[in-house]
Amino acid sequence: MTENDSRFLKACRGEEVDCTPIWFMRQAGRYMQEYRKLREKHTLLELCTRPDLAKEVTLQPIRRFDLDAAIVFADILLPLKSMGVGFDFVKGKGPVIHQPIRSPADVEKLHAGDPEEDLKCVLETLGLVRGELDPKIALIGFAGAPFTVASYMIEGGYSRNFLHTKRLMYSHPEAWQRLMETTSEVMARYLTAQIEAGAQAIQLFDSWVGSLEPEDYRRYVLPYSQKIFARLKPYSVPLLHFGTGTATLLELMKEAGGTVMGVDWRISLKDARGRLGSNTPIQGNLDPVALFAPPSCLEEKVDQVLEQADGRPGHIFNLGHGILPETPVENVEAVVEWVHAKSKR
Amino acid sequence: MTENDSRFLKACRGEEVDCTPIWFMRQAGRYMQEYRKLREKHTLLELCTRPDLAKEVTLQPIRRFDLDAAIVFADILLPLKSMGVGFDFVKGKGPVIHQPIRSPADVEKLHAGDPEEDLKCVLETLGLVRGELDPKIALIGFAGAPFTVASYMIEGGYSRNFLHTKRLMYSHPEAWQRLMETTSEVMARYLTAQIEAGAQAIQLFDSWVGSLEPEDYRRYVLPYSQKIFARLKPYSVPLLHFGTGTATLLELMKEAGGTVMGVDWRISLKDARGRLGSNTPIQGNLDPVALFAPPSCLEEKVDQVLEQADGRPGHIFNLGHGILPETPVENVEAVVEWVHAKSKR
Repeated sequence: MTENDSRFLKACRGEEVDCTPIWFMRQAGRYMQEYRKLREKHTLLELCTRPDLAKEVTLQPIRRFDLDAAIVFADILLPLKSMGVGFDFVKGKGPVIHQPIRSPADVEKLHAGDPEEDLKCVLETLGLVRGELDPKIALIGFAGAPFTVASYMIEGGYSRNFLHTKRLMYSHPEAWQRLMETTSEVMARYLTAQIEAGAQAIQLFDSWVGSLEPEDYRRYVLPYSQKIFARLKPYSVPLLHFGTGTATLLELMKEAGGTVMGVDWRISLKDARGRLGSNTPIQGNLDPVALFAPPSCLEEKVDQVLEQADGRPGHIFNLGHGILPETPVENVEAVVEWVHAKSKR
Repeated sequence: MTENDSRFLKACRGEEVDCTPIWFMRQAGRYMQEYRKLREKHTLLELCTRPDLAKEVTLQPIRRFDLDAAIVFADILLPLKSMGVGFDFVKGKGPVIHQPIRSPADVEKLHAGDPEEDLKCVLETLGLVRGELDPKIALIGFAGAPFTVASYMIEGGYSRNFLHTKRLMYSHPEAWQRLMETTSEVMARYLTAQIEAGAQAIQLFDSWVGSLEPEDYRRYVLPYSQKIFARLKPYSVPLLHFGTGTATLLELMKEAGGTVMGVDWRISLKDARGRLGSNTPIQGNLDPVALFAPPSCLEEKVDQVLEQADGRPGHIFNLGHGILPETPVENVEAVVEWVHAKSKR
């Protein structure tokens, strides 16, 4: 079997597979004892930026579960380095940007920098992982989409209402354009380098884009995500385009690009496929909180996702967002087994 | 003119109006100097529970803007008193429940209590406000929907992923049922009493219901919201049913009940009407953050909402969620004037 025959890559191309492939967003993380053990000795930033550690963390869930894809362990904020924006991960708070971007003058200071050099560690990790990974398991590279990354840079961290982000967008459209162009340039170069370093598929995370009304997405976001996808297209690797709360944005996100659309649990896969066209491969969409349910309830929810995907090719099983730190590990294991067994063609 | 001829009530019934009525969720609040002045001297709980103060706060935005409806100043957590659940408003954190409901044993301790007695202050406020309000301005009563109120009681405050809420729902369906039945009983009695005290329309706030997948809404939420609407129906007052992020839940929420559906900015009014049927009156849906935009951008957004409502009867202009505390008051004023002027039939 060649690497291109892997179940995950075939499903991403809409080809027939022996059973539905599965991986989890944030599958390497605190819910695993192996991860917590490493994390005790190293900061999150060290785990992301030291290729030996990042490789280890990337492979932990692969060793433990029968997953169909590995995703390189990194963080969507790492590329901020290339733009000259400092940040840290603060316990209990998540990422904190030292000097949030709030004005056109702040935007002026940004530069696209040298992501290939600044993020060499991630590229190295990709090479190391690929060297150890069974060919039947695909390796995914990723980056944050311009809107989601910009929202962190502007808000300074996680936000409930994206007030500063939208205010900049509405009040200073030219600064916004510049910010989005710089961010998309960095991401396009970073992702290109990831493909060249061994990533066989790319996922663009636009996690917070569901906070926007469709018309704002069209005007302020679509052109910049589109630019990234256009730059990656010549590589012919699957391009996964993901966001949460995107039920009303799906058609526009597809227009922006991506060959596989990722959706969360708020929309049924059946409805999503209905709107995207049944030829568009789709990824999703178990609620991460369902992993806290008792086995019978969880199994019912897995059945429901598979049923709504309707046994057609072009479905990659995943959560609708990242695994939560408190998730019972045995439930993750059960879902992987159920998905493979229940979807056997 | 009789009270029933008010522009707001007519629009709620889908009747022709001279222009589109408008009010704002959380129109009495910190963005107004008058409110902040009172708030300096009194706690939020005092403002809610002292009828003389609550009346004053309710009327503040009515005196300042040409609004078509007043909503009684209260908080969706006030009825927790009747269930024996203690809470407080904590500066910078919002509501904090003293002992969150986490287990079936916690649920056992809840009781439906005596909302008519415990919330007499709100009923009195309604009477006082009605006595001072111009008949052409409608008076709205409200309560939180069972899911949203339960989520506060379980999480202990605001939540990002509703982990505890969903875990209880999935793991202890009988306790969940009991919790939802108790909550809906309290809300039904509270809302009935509000109508009898002078509320001419009722809004049920299911603000966080958009965190659920449609099947969970159908199973764990719909029956209980439905029970409330069924109990209110005989009163023949408009029943507004509101939530955020509900693009995929609209049909089910309509099935639960309500004569007017409230939506947020994530779905265009055109799409919402398409899905609910053009005979269903609709309320919404400007993004509260749009109120921070420069006038030309804000005006464009107001135009867009009116355009998507398509000049048809049965549209009540509102935000898609509550006004934010930092909102520039002059923008609120401008939106009221634009909506009336631009929608003149």
